[in-house]
Amino acid sequence: MSLPDYAALSNGFKAILLNVDGAVLTATVNRAKYYNTFTEDVQHELIQVFGVADKDDGIRVVILTAEHTAPAFCSGADISKGWDRLWDPEAEKEGEHAHRDGGGQLTLAVLNCRKITIVAVNGHAAGVGMTAMQLPFDFRFVWEGAKLSFPFVRRGIVPEGKSKLQPYLLPKLIGLSRANSLVLGGETLKPTSPLISLLYHRILPTREEVYPAAKAFAQDLAENTAQVSVAYAKGLLHHPGDSPEENHLLDSRAMKLLAGSHDGAEGVKAFLEKRKPKLTDTLSKEFVAVVSLGKV
Amino acid sequence: MSLPDYAALSNGFKAILLNVDGAVLTATVNRAKYYNTFTEDVQHELIQVFGVADKDDGIRVVILTAEHTAPAFCSGADISKGWDRLWDPEAEKEGEHAHRDGGGQLTLAVLNCRKITIVAVNGHAAGVGMTAMQLPFDFRFVWEGAKLSFPFVRRGIVPEGKSKLQPYLLPKLIGLSRANSLVLGGETLKPTSPLISLLYHRILPTREEVYPAAKAFAQDLAENTAQVSVAYAKGLLHHPGDSPEENHLLDSRAMKLLAGSHDGAEGVKAFLEKRKPKLTDTLSKEFVAVVSLGKV
Amino acid sequence: MSLPDYAALSNGFKAILLNVDGAVLTATVNRAKYYNTFTEDVQHELIQVFGVADKDDGIRVVILTAEHTAPAFCSGADISKGWDRLWDPEAEKEGEHAHRDGGGQLTLAVLNCRKITIVAVNGHAAGVGMTAMQLPFDFRFVWEGAKLSFPFVRRGIVPEGKSKLQPYLLPKLIGLSRANSLVLGGETLKPTSPLISLLYHRILPTREEVYPAAKAFAQDLAENTAQVSVAYAKGLLHHPGDSPEENHLLDSRAMKLLAGSHDGAEGVKAFLEKRKPKLTDTLSKEFVAVVSLGKV
Repeated sequence: MSLPDYAALSNGFKAILLNVDGAVLTATVNRAKYYNTFTEDVQHELIQVFGVADKDDGIRVVILTAEHTAPAFCSGADISKGWDRLWDPEAEKEGEHAHRDGGGQLTLAVLNCRKITIVAVNGHAAGVGMTAMQLPFDFRFVWEGAKLSFPFVRRGIVPEGKSKLQPYLLPKLIGLSRANSLVLGGETLKPTSPLISLLYHRILPTREEVYPAAKAFAQDLAENTAQVSVAYAKGLLHHPGDSPEENHLLDSRAMKLLAGSHDGAEGVKAFLEKRKPKLTDTLSKEFVAVVSLGKV
Repeated sequence: MSLPDYAALSNGFKAILLNVDGAVLTATVNRAKYYNTFTEDVQHELIQVFGVADKDDGIRVVILTAEHTAPAFCSGADISKGWDRLWDPEAEKEGEHAHRDGGGQLTLAVLNCRKITIVAVNGHAAGVGMTAMQLPFDFRFVWEGAKLSFPFVRRGIVPEGKSKLQPYLLPKLIGLSRANSLVLGGETLKPTSPLISLLYHRILPTREEVYPAAKAFAQDLAENTAQVSVAYAKGLLHHPGDSPEENHLLDSRAMKLLAGSHDGAEGVKAFLEKRKPKLTDTLSKEFVAVVSLGKV
Repeated sequence: MSLPDYAALSNGFKAILLNVDGAVLTATVNRAKYYNTFTEDVQHELIQVFGVADKDDGIRVVILTAEHTAPAFCSGADISKGWDRLWDPEAEKEGEHAHRDGGGQLTLAVLNCRKITIVAVNGHAAGVGMTAMQLPFDFRFVWEGAKLSFPFVRRGIVPEGKSKLQPYLLPKLIGLSRANSLVLGGETLKPTSPLISLLYHRILPTREEVYPAAKAFAQDLAENTAQVSVAYAKGLLHHPGDSPEENHLLDSRAMKLLAGSHDGAEGVKAFLEKRKPKLTDTLSKEFVAVVSLGKV
């Protein structure tokens, strides 16, 4: 495919800024004066971003962050006019079963992106700012001082407002004991609390350090990981199969296919020669065989 | 439904004391001189308590604790006459397949209660005192000095004595790595041990602080959470569905229903007006629509 | 069955040393000058060891460790000649679908062993040294200074080289949040890192203390646990069933069977008499009834 024009894409956006640096794409929520609340624009533009990044071989890592001039990374859904904004007028015409939750749609878009995804939580987060904006990502970096809350049961709605995949994802991510505490307690916590710390890959002392730390990590991963290996690993982590035996058959086949790939050969060669590998296989060309396994 | 008479219920009990304070129901095991061992009375009376609490709209939180004059919260099953007391003579007449484990029945009763459940572990705990009396609860509060043990493999029985749902619940709660350590190691641990600390929402320095801390938390939750949201959240946490996509469809529908409820509207209105919400929807009246989703 | 001759078995091995001390069998990787890399010999000999131990009533605990003269517990697969050694020439003749991953086969052998399994990681570990050599074990003991790495996505292969059950086991063991960090990050970590510490039952200050600590724990378990209870507990932990209700029925039946066993009676009797139990039931004689439940 031809390279997407990210500058043009970004120019057409109202809520999201885009930046491409090598193979790292950064999407920044640019609604600082509204506490970076989650709106239809945020949702639709981010869904586009993760869809494009999934298909662009030139992108290996996607970072989501927020304008750090705001005190908040994302203070939740924009409920300045109540819940009404959640409903799509077109879907409403089709009847009450047509509603598809916006946070849920973003969650699926992030989960389905086969590139490495990182969120840099450089401010306070609540509601959908804790859920669709964080839970589906591979890595969560956070500011030590961030106030984090899952207020859903305290607002009279289902958990969780605009991203109800939370009760599905949370127990998988950190176990049911901690998920119960977060969802049913609805307390406001710091990332170092033992109730929530398992969510975070790294906790940084200041807001200003969160994005740079995520960026440096992203650049390392972009330079040193194989695109097809990452896509395959993500597929297995999210869809682990029903038994050890099923996984064994599937993995044996995948190992055979990937060890015979360019990146598989280069990976081991570079290791033996004590140099960095040049991992150039791409999803658009080399992933088809693995996809045909029917699991990823 | 008419309000249950908890005083009359409690008067009919041999092993359990009941106390109602607002929307918080406390059940206290009152067998201090027997180390609060688990008996048929404890089992049957607690199953009644969680059944009644599930149906009484006036109750929002149930706390289980023990008379703190005992050194033990619950020192396990009453095995003073061996395992014989475990068998129900009536069931035995129907043949050997008729046995239904008592701890397992209590576990199911707690899991099926749609209100918030908290256990205040204000003493040592072993066997069923670690399992049916703790694992199915939403929140576990514990005394820092409590000696906690899962001795099953060291007693020649299946894990775990009177509540064999443990090997199902434990890996869900804290992951298989820690569950293996607890079930197969059979060691006695303090709650601050990294092997078990994930089970606990809060660890208190003294036995005397455990119940008051649980009670204060219960009162906060009773005043500030929506009954229907809680029931729905619990259903999703325990039965998360098989895929992100299935959850997305289910949640979209639930969000539509609940955002249109009184509590959903009041929750957002109170937030915007910076006041506490008055969340008055009840399971008996407002839960039917959600139940009809077939998942909760 | 007649007692296996472990000395003779060990004499026939190229890569693994065996030692039997009471009911504890220790297998030691003896390739220190090759950094204890994983070869076909290591794989085939360990698979034999766990198969024999599973069936020998005289063995209650199996420990895997490595010659501690090496700086590495296991530095990964032997890739000194690339990936070619991974392919079995006989299987290759049958076509490309015949490959069965070696690390995966070892993982299944350890998972299927019904005795307690402990790994004593007394050195650095990478690749298959982190996965097949550690993840399927019931208990992991480790040296505090060990460098641990999951380099798969950085080598252009599927996770994880020779043991692709990792993406299945890791989220079960420590949750998806930590599994994502380990598999997709590919960083080198110390065992005390919050990203990986949940894997370990005990972390020891020096390399020399790791095996003795594991051995002392193994001897305690060998003397004080019931063989049938352990096998049953392992089955339930690994195959927990699909619902609380299913587990309740299964466990009720198992409790009935096991409480009536010699070890069940002796376990409670010894407890009441405040002495150590003599737990003598064996898998070859007493496990059949439980196996017939169809789950273990």
